[in-house]
Amino acid sequence: MGAPREGILSEEPLYDPKILERLDFSKARTKFSTPVSAARPGEGLRVRPLRRADYRRGFLQLLSQLTSVGDVSEEQFLKRFDAMQACPNTYYVTVIEDTTNGQVIGASTLVIEQKFIHGCNVRGRAERPASESRGESRSGTEQRHWPRTVAGGAAGAAPTQPQPRGW
Amino acid sequence: MGAPREGILSEEPLYDPKILERLDFSKARTKFSTPVSAARPGEGLRVRPLRRADYRRGFLQLLSQLTSVGDVSEEQFLKRFDAMQACPNTYYVTVIEDTTNGQVIGASTLVIEQKFIHGCNVRGRAERPASESRGESRSGTEQRHWPRTVAGGAAGAAPTQPQPRGW
Repeated sequence: MGAPREGILSEEPLYDPKILERLDFSKARTKFSTPVSAARPGEGLRVRPLRRADYRRGFLQLLSQLTSVGDVSEEQFLKRFDAMQACPNTYYVTVIEDTTNGQVIGASTLVIEQKFIHGCNVRGRAERPASESRGESRSGTEQRHWPRTVAGGAAGAAPTQPQPRGW
Repeated sequence: MGAPREGILSEEPLYDPKILERLDFSKARTKFSTPVSAARPGEGLRVRPLRRADYRRGFLQLLSQLTSVGDVSEEQFLKRFDAMQACPNTYYVTVIEDTTNGQVIGASTLVIEQKFIHGCNVRGRAERPASESRGESRSGTEQRHWPRTVAGGAAGAAPTQPQPRGW
């Protein structure tokens, strides 16, 4: 049965949530009519790192709106979560939770790659953000698309477009 | 001064060398007039994972033929080596050593990225291989360009071209 499905581990964040708190949204390319921050993303919303329990909160269903997810069992999901967590400073999967029903309605991933070149620099690659497109759960509320800069700034790396093979 | 510069750690491989032994070159797209393998790459050549001591064997000078490396101190290099090693099953930096003088004359990197999508699959991205272009050290010997498949097959992942942001 592998990793525990309940208990304290199920709500353990994939990465340190304090990283999100340090984000300065005023530096984001996207401008907001109402100021937002990771701590104040909007009413009824919570921005936080992915947790194991998000398997049961619609995380994979959300991703499946963007691409093929396949039939991923909870055990597979937990194993992959653990593998990502075992890589220090690498995987920053961030979700938006609808606090009214606990469902994951937005997600973005930043992957940090370590390099020897450019003075032992790092490269950040942000995956395309996924967000709830049905809208039923957010009726009467403007759909928020989380800016890629949220995850991009998380690890202190400038988010970059994918580059063709660069050392 | 941080990590040891001499001693047993300096020759410790970045990843398990047995992975290279398992590579089947007959499956490589590149065809070789003389059969090669990781164990028999050619006379005077050795294929192996990166080691800490390669800082003093021209590894970064080799990369600088492809792109900007900058002024990387040995301490920075060792720190980055350690950081890569701390990420399980992720960084596969492979070099070709000229056994006549111990210099690194070829290098390729495969980076494995773990994903939730496609049945919790992994994606491998191979960097552009670097190889000695001066030729002085290999005079009289045909210059060998190590196929990207060498690194690509190392971790059991099909090497792929960089893809635009895909979960």
